[in-house]
Amino acid sequence: MIKTDILIIGAGPTGLFAVFEAGLLKLKCHLIDALPQPGGQCAEIYPKKPIYDIPAYPEVLAGDLVNNLMKQIEAFEPGFTLGERAETIEKQDDGSFIVTTNKGTKHQAPVVAIAGGLGSFEPRKPQLGNIGDFEDKGVEYIIRDPELYRDMKVAIAGGGDSALDWAIFLADVAKEVSLIHRRNEFRGALDSVEKVEQLTKLGKIRLITPAEVTGLKGKDSLESIEIKKADETFDLQVDHFIPLFGLSPKLGPIANWGLEIEKNAIKVNNALDYQTNIPGIYAIGDVNTYPGKLKLILCGFHEATLMCQSAYQRIFPDKKYILKYTTVSGVDGFDGSRKEAEKAVVKSIS
Amino acid sequence: MIKTDILIIGAGPTGLFAVFEAGLLKLKCHLIDALPQPGGQCAEIYPKKPIYDIPAYPEVLAGDLVNNLMKQIEAFEPGFTLGERAETIEKQDDGSFIVTTNKGTKHQAPVVAIAGGLGSFEPRKPQLGNIGDFEDKGVEYIIRDPELYRDMKVAIAGGGDSALDWAIFLADVAKEVSLIHRRNEFRGALDSVEKVEQLTKLGKIRLITPAEVTGLKGKDSLESIEIKKADETFDLQVDHFIPLFGLSPKLGPIANWGLEIEKNAIKVNNALDYQTNIPGIYAIGDVNTYPGKLKLILCGFHEATLMCQSAYQRIFPDKKYILKYTTVSGVDGFDGSRKEAEKAVVKSIS
Ligand SMILES: Cc1cc2nc3c(=O)[nH]c(=O)nc-3n(C[C@H](O)[C@H](O)[C@H](O)COP(=O)(O)OP(=O)(O)OC[C@H]3O[C@@H](n4cnc5c(N)ncnc54)[C@H](O)[C@@H]3O)c2cc1C
Ligand SMILES: Cc1cc2nc3c(=O)[nH]c(=O)nc-3n(C[C@H](O)[C@H](O)[C@H](O)COP(=O)(O)OP(=O)(O)OC[C@H]3O[C@@H](n4cnc5c(N)ncnc54)[C@H](O)[C@@H]3O)c2cc1C
Repeated sequence: MIKTDILIIGAGPTGLFAVFEAGLLKLKCHLIDALPQPGGQCAEIYPKKPIYDIPAYPEVLAGDLVNNLMKQIEAFEPGFTLGERAETIEKQDDGSFIVTTNKGTKHQAPVVAIAGGLGSFEPRKPQLGNIGDFEDKGVEYIIRDPELYRDMKVAIAGGGDSALDWAIFLADVAKEVSLIHRRNEFRGALDSVEKVEQLTKLGKIRLITPAEVTGLKGKDSLESIEIKKADETFDLQVDHFIPLFGLSPKLGPIANWGLEIEKNAIKVNNALDYQTNIPGIYAIGDVNTYPGKLKLILCGFHEATLMCQSAYQRIFPDKKYILKYTTVSGVDGFDGSRKEAEKAVVKSIS
Repeated sequence: MIKTDILIIGAGPTGLFAVFEAGLLKLKCHLIDALPQPGGQCAEIYPKKPIYDIPAYPEVLAGDLVNNLMKQIEAFEPGFTLGERAETIEKQDDGSFIVTTNKGTKHQAPVVAIAGGLGSFEPRKPQLGNIGDFEDKGVEYIIRDPELYRDMKVAIAGGGDSALDWAIFLADVAKEVSLIHRRNEFRGALDSVEKVEQLTKLGKIRLITPAEVTGLKGKDSLESIEIKKADETFDLQVDHFIPLFGLSPKLGPIANWGLEIEKNAIKVNNALDYQTNIPGIYAIGDVNTYPGKLKLILCGFHEATLMCQSAYQRIFPDKKYILKYTTVSGVDGFDGSRKEAEKAVVKSIS
């Protein structure tokens, strides 16, 4: 059982920044995310694209935003359960909550902050009858650790940035990389398209277009895939098949937690602390809704900050927290680090 | 008469960021500030100190935060009325407001956003009976343009960072710089104290401590100041006397605009759009109050953003604005500039 002060569901920008604000209040956080990496939409959908409306950043790449947030919260030593989906929540007699993931990992905390964005990112799967039999036995929808593919025969399906970028990356790692797409046209950064073209010419990527994977074969694990190209159907020996058809967010199990839902989002009390209808459960960032709600990153930052103040009062009903400016009081990390402004001196001039 | 869409009172971080959010909605802004420079508390009180809780900035100097905000809003060409205090507001028959400053400058807009922080920064003045006679005739409380002092005889009074920093700066500009302080001890950055010590030894600053200015003399303008040091009283010939005893913020005239005030701040509807009790007048940032309010920069950013959406609906009741991501739609400056993410290409690989 993982125990923490604030259990955060969703490691997007909102959840990450909540760790910082909680840390200032000396509260520890643990984050659960269905994705293998932190950063939510920024990391998964558009890491290499610029955002222009982060305050005081005339321009920042979404991926850099996430890196900067990770750096900012480092000293508060957040815990992470990545690649798992928060599935169920149970309220305990002592008022705390136990949240269990689809893989059975249990987490307990007096406060739960749902920062689930548009929902848990779930892969779009190709419609192949027996694909479930091969999941994690040769079929992966998300690449968690590229080393898994070292010296393997890999087939990637898809025509967007993920498919292009991973084909390029794995060309140097795997024994064989085939890229299968139902059209001849790819849609992605110009760089990536050109790089795939080049690697294809060098024989490092085998391009199979326009074509579709129509079957999966293997005994205990995947051994080959069936490919239909024009009128021809043939088998390709592979160790791994990675369909990268995009991830689509689904509110999923959270929708059944007894929370008030409106327009696929969780209703919160925006006039105070972004708490849901269940005391002790908050919803912040894209996942919540209230009159005038804007699904913007900067709004999630504010909501996370007010949520932490309320969580503090819930956890320590008898203590009164007085807001301190970081500039004046500095930042004390849980790792023993301390950041502080240079102090003014009082010095006589002779 | 200066006309604009949103008239912003206060050019602190909140007011500055409001220009950006308004710009995304194609609304023009004009800012009024009592200080000679934008940046509010960050620029006036602690420009060289680090802030640690700006989201995605593990550390940023307050002065750099302001510079970055100025850069971010540049393309939206905000207007500035600096060094003037917003004094009166009158509602017009067409629903717009006219705001007049203490210097008589008039501004008209359908929406007024008060981003006045802790109030208009007013200098703490030394208690010298006739000081009012010499204001702007040799006595200045804020240095607006250092060039005013070129080849002049200048006396600065004060023992903090401003007094130290300006004494250092003017030592290279003025003919003579005297620094008068009632103690021998100065309170400021170690660097500055040491630099003043060094310039004193070089004869570039004349240090008069512990001493006090007890009188001002001159016919049409200031000619000399009377100084009391220990038991001795003497006159010092100067062209300018600059008492730098700090600025203290005063809500001031805004307190009489018919707005609901609580704890020296303006009450707003935080459940929707940070509007005050007078429709069309909003209050954002440190200047407002509501249940759970935190006087933090990041909160002002969020409030400014929601305010702009509401202002848009007030100005264009018939248009429906649909939120667009800057990453997806880019940013079109009023100066004709355009920022946008590199577009994905659709390209066939042969
Ligand atoms: C192309 C694009 C461009 C954008 N441009 C901008 C822009 O310019 N400016 C701007 O402000 N915003 C922009 N946005 C929106 C911005 O990315 C979101 O507002 C932001 O990511 C929301 O952050 P979040 O932390 O609330 O949620 P998310 O980033 O969505 O993160 C939520 C995380 O929670 C996880 N999760 C959800 N449910 C569960 C569960 N049950 N178990 C485990 N994990 C779960 C998800 O996997 C996800 O990683 C853009 C979005 C897109 C797609
Ligand atoms: C030493 C110190 C350290 C701080 N550290 C932090 C920190 O670490 N993190 C954090 O988030 N915050 C910190 N703060 C607080 C932060 O600076 C404020 O929250 C922020 O400046 C508020 O921005 P604002 O734009 O709302 O108001 P302000 O910055 O106060 O700006 C308001 C402006 O309005 C002007 N104004 C007001 N009334 C009038 C009028 N009638 N006419 C003309 N002009 C007017 C004023 O002159 C002023 O320039 C700190 C503050 C101080 C003093």
